[in-house]
Amino acid sequence: MTNTGMTRRSFLQGSALTGVAVAGASNIGFNTEPKNQKVANAKTMMGVPFQKHQKIRLGIIGLGERGSSHVRDFTNIPDVEIVAICDIQHSGRYSTEAAKQRIVAAGQKEPAIYGKDENDWKNLCKRGDLDLIFVVTPWELHVPNAVAAMEGGAHVAIEVPAAIDLKGCWQLVQVSEKTRRHAMMMENCNYGRTEMMVLNMVQKGVFGTITHGEAAYIHCLRTPWYMSKTNVGPWRRPMHTRFDGNLYPTHGLGPVCWYMGIHKGDRLASLVSYSSPEASLSEYLNEKLEVSDPRRKEKYLCGDMNTSIIKTAMGRTIMLQHDVVTPRPYSRHNLIQGSKGCFADYPARIHVDGITREHRWDSDMAPWQEKYGHPLWIELEAQASQSGHGGMDFIMNYRLIQCMKQGLAPDFDVYDAAAWSAPFPLSVASVTKNGAPQEFPDFTDGHWKSLSSPQ
Amino acid sequence: MTNTGMTRRSFLQGSALTGVAVAGASNIGFNTEPKNQKVANAKTMMGVPFQKHQKIRLGIIGLGERGSSHVRDFTNIPDVEIVAICDIQHSGRYSTEAAKQRIVAAGQKEPAIYGKDENDWKNLCKRGDLDLIFVVTPWELHVPNAVAAMEGGAHVAIEVPAAIDLKGCWQLVQVSEKTRRHAMMMENCNYGRTEMMVLNMVQKGVFGTITHGEAAYIHCLRTPWYMSKTNVGPWRRPMHTRFDGNLYPTHGLGPVCWYMGIHKGDRLASLVSYSSPEASLSEYLNEKLEVSDPRRKEKYLCGDMNTSIIKTAMGRTIMLQHDVVTPRPYSRHNLIQGSKGCFADYPARIHVDGITREHRWDSDMAPWQEKYGHPLWIELEAQASQSGHGGMDFIMNYRLIQCMKQGLAPDFDVYDAAAWSAPFPLSVASVTKNGAPQEFPDFTDGHWKSLSSPQ
Repeated sequence: MTNTGMTRRSFLQGSALTGVAVAGASNIGFNTEPKNQKVANAKTMMGVPFQKHQKIRLGIIGLGERGSSHVRDFTNIPDVEIVAICDIQHSGRYSTEAAKQRIVAAGQKEPAIYGKDENDWKNLCKRGDLDLIFVVTPWELHVPNAVAAMEGGAHVAIEVPAAIDLKGCWQLVQVSEKTRRHAMMMENCNYGRTEMMVLNMVQKGVFGTITHGEAAYIHCLRTPWYMSKTNVGPWRRPMHTRFDGNLYPTHGLGPVCWYMGIHKGDRLASLVSYSSPEASLSEYLNEKLEVSDPRRKEKYLCGDMNTSIIKTAMGRTIMLQHDVVTPRPYSRHNLIQGSKGCFADYPARIHVDGITREHRWDSDMAPWQEKYGHPLWIELEAQASQSGHGGMDFIMNYRLIQCMKQGLAPDFDVYDAAAWSAPFPLSVASVTKNGAPQEFPDFTDGHWKSLSSPQ
Repeated sequence: MTNTGMTRRSFLQGSALTGVAVAGASNIGFNTEPKNQKVANAKTMMGVPFQKHQKIRLGIIGLGERGSSHVRDFTNIPDVEIVAICDIQHSGRYSTEAAKQRIVAAGQKEPAIYGKDENDWKNLCKRGDLDLIFVVTPWELHVPNAVAAMEGGAHVAIEVPAAIDLKGCWQLVQVSEKTRRHAMMMENCNYGRTEMMVLNMVQKGVFGTITHGEAAYIHCLRTPWYMSKTNVGPWRRPMHTRFDGNLYPTHGLGPVCWYMGIHKGDRLASLVSYSSPEASLSEYLNEKLEVSDPRRKEKYLCGDMNTSIIKTAMGRTIMLQHDVVTPRPYSRHNLIQGSKGCFADYPARIHVDGITREHRWDSDMAPWQEKYGHPLWIELEAQASQSGHGGMDFIMNYRLIQCMKQGLAPDFDVYDAAAWSAPFPLSVASVTKNGAPQEFPDFTDGHWKSLSSPQ
C-alpha cells in the first residue's frame, strides 16, 4: 500500500464536525415522494470494501467525447484491461472503432465490441466476466445501464448525474444493496487539485467549525448545444424543455459534501429552490438559427438561473446554483466557510483568521499547495497532467482502480450517488411548488450518523 | 434644472423589463402576518413630488459615527440649514457639542440642541418648522422616530433598515400616506459609483433581459462589536441573541431592486431562507474575552451565514446573503445577470456577449465608466470624494436635497423602505419555519404594476 492508499475512513472522516449545534434538525420533516424505499433488512453498502483485484476487467458503455477520454485514461493505468466497449457509433472520432484502435495501440487485446443496436449494452452487462462497467451515456440511460451492470455482477462507475429522479436514486440503492456491487457516481471535480487541497485543509481544521458552503455550475453551453457537431445538444438541450430546476448539481455539490463530511456524521436534509425566468436560450435561437430550423420550435421551461439552498441534518447550509445558458464566464463557484476562515474559488482565494492579512484574500495558492497539497496529487501530478479537466479525471480513475486493487471501500458509494443527484428532482419539485422545502430521502437508512464506516 | 435633475420616472424606469415571462407570479400566495394593513381609501405616495423648497430646514436625530458623517455632508450642500440636532451624548467626538461646532464652523446659525433625556427626540419632531428630519438612531428607534417626524410635518430620511418587523413597515406606509410626507430609507449603496453605472447599463439594455440578481452583506464585525469604544456593539450585537435570519438586507438588495425596476413594473413577491449554525461569535468571545466578562454569557441565536432567495412577481430571482461574524474579507457581493451579459462585484467585473472577450470577465471598469458613468457622479465626483464610503453618502444626500429643491419625487419612497427592509422579518420567519416560503406584503397596493409614476 502506498502512502496514498488511505481507506475511505481516513480519506473522508473528521471534516470539522465538532462544535456545531444540531439546529433544527429534529424539526425537518416535509413531504416528498417517494419518502423511503428501503428494502426491509437490506444490508448497507456503506464502507463495504472491494474484494482485492489483481487485474480489473473493465467494460465501457458510451464512447462519445467523455467515454473516449476515459478510454485514454484507463489505457494509462496499470492492471486495467478494457475487455468490452459499447457504442452505436462505429466510425469517426468518437466510436467503437476509434476506441478499439486506442486500446490495441496501448498493447492490450482487442476488446469485444457492442452496439449493433440501441439495446446491445444489455449484452455487455450480461457477459458476467467484468469487474467494473463504466456508464458514460446520456443521463436517462444511467440508471438502467447501472442496474444491468450490477445485476450482471460488475461494480459500476456512473457519469454525473447518476439519476434524474428519486425513483432512479432509490433503484440504484436497492440494486447495489441486493447485488452487493458498488454504484459510484464518478464526480471528477471531487478530485480537482484545488478541491483536494481544500478537503485536506478542512480535515486539518484550518477553517475552524464548518458552517456553510456554496457550489455552482455556471457554464454557457449555448454554442455547443446549437452549433457543435458533437451529439450532446440533441439529448441535453431538450432536458430544458421538460424540467425547471437544477439539472446538473453534482460538480459543485460533490466537493462541498466531502468538505462537510456528508454521510460521515451529517446528511443533506432539505432543499428550497427558485428559478429565474427563461430568456437566454429562446433569444439565442431566435437570433442565431434560420427561420426554417426546427429547433426554433423548442420551448424552454428551465429558468436561466436556478438557485437552491440545502440544509443539512446538522443545520449547515449549502447555496447551490445552475446556469448553463447565459453568456457568463465559466464558474464552478465553490466555497467553504468556517469560524476560522474561508476558501472560495473562481478565482481561488483563501482567508484564515490570524494567518492571512486581515480583511484580505490570499490569491496565491502555491504556498497553500506546498503545505496542504493532497498526497494523491503529489504522487500522480505528472501523470495526471496528460488527462482531461486539468488532471482530475485521471486522479479519479486511478484512485478507483487503486481501491479495487487494494481491497478498500470506494471513496464514494451509492448513497453519495443518490444524495448528490437528488437536487435535480428536489429542485424541480420545489420550483413547481413556489419554493416549498423538499425533504431529501435518507438513502443511507440512518448509517450517515456513524462517523466511521463499518469496515 | 441641471442635466442630472431627472425625475424619478427617468431615473428608475425602463429597467429591461421586456421579454420576461411572468412565470408563476399568479401562483404565489403564502401565509404571512400581517398580510395587508392598507388603510381603506389611502392615497399612494408613489411618485408624489416634493413641494419646491428654496431652503431645506433639517433636523438630525442621532449623532453617532453615522449621524456625524451626515452633519458633515449637509454642511457642504447648498441651501441646507441644520436647524435642530439631537443626541444623548453631549461631549466627545460624536456628540451634540461636536456637531454644533461643525455646523457653526460652516457658517450656519447655532442649531437647537435636543437630548436632555432619551425621549427628547419627540420634542425635536414636534417643532413643526422642519422640512426634513434625518433618523440616525439604533434600528429599533427608526419607526417611532420616523412616525413622529412625519406627524410633526416633516419628510423623513431613515437610516437602514427602516424597520425590523412587518408591523413597522406597515406603520411607515400608513403614516406616510396619511400625513403626505415621504419616508425615505437612505440606502447609500444605491448611490455607489459602480452601482449607478450598472443601473445606467441595465436601463440602456446592455445586459439584455434581466433575469437574476445577487446581493450580500458580508462584513466581519466581531472586533468592533467587542473591542471598539464606539457604542454600536451594545445595541447591535444583542440583535443576534434575538433573531436568526438576514438582519441587514438593504445594502445589497437596494441596488439590485433598482436594477430590476422594483415598484416600476415588478415587486418582491416571496422569500425562502435558511441560516447556517452559529459558531463564530461564541467561539470568538470564549477565546478573546476575560472569563469574568459579562458578555461571555450572551447566547447567539443568529446563524453565521443566512442565505435567502427572493422571487419577484415577474419571476426573477435574487440571492441574498448576510454574514457579519465570520472572518471573511468584506463583500457587498452584487450581481445582475441578463440574457446578454452580467455584472458582478467584489471584485467588479463585466461580461457582455459579443463585446468582452468570450468566456472572460473584463475587470477594468475605467472604459465602462467612461461610456456609462452616471450623470450624477460625473457632476459631483470631486465634491463627493471628500465624503464617507467612497463618496456615495454625499451623492445620496445631495440628490435628496436636489429633489426637494426642484420639486421632484424622491428616488425612493416609503414602499421601497418597507419592501427592502422586509427580508429581515421574512427571513426570520422562513428560518423559523424550516425554509417555508414567506410572502412579501404588497405595500404599494398594486401601484407597483405601473411602469411610470403617477406624477
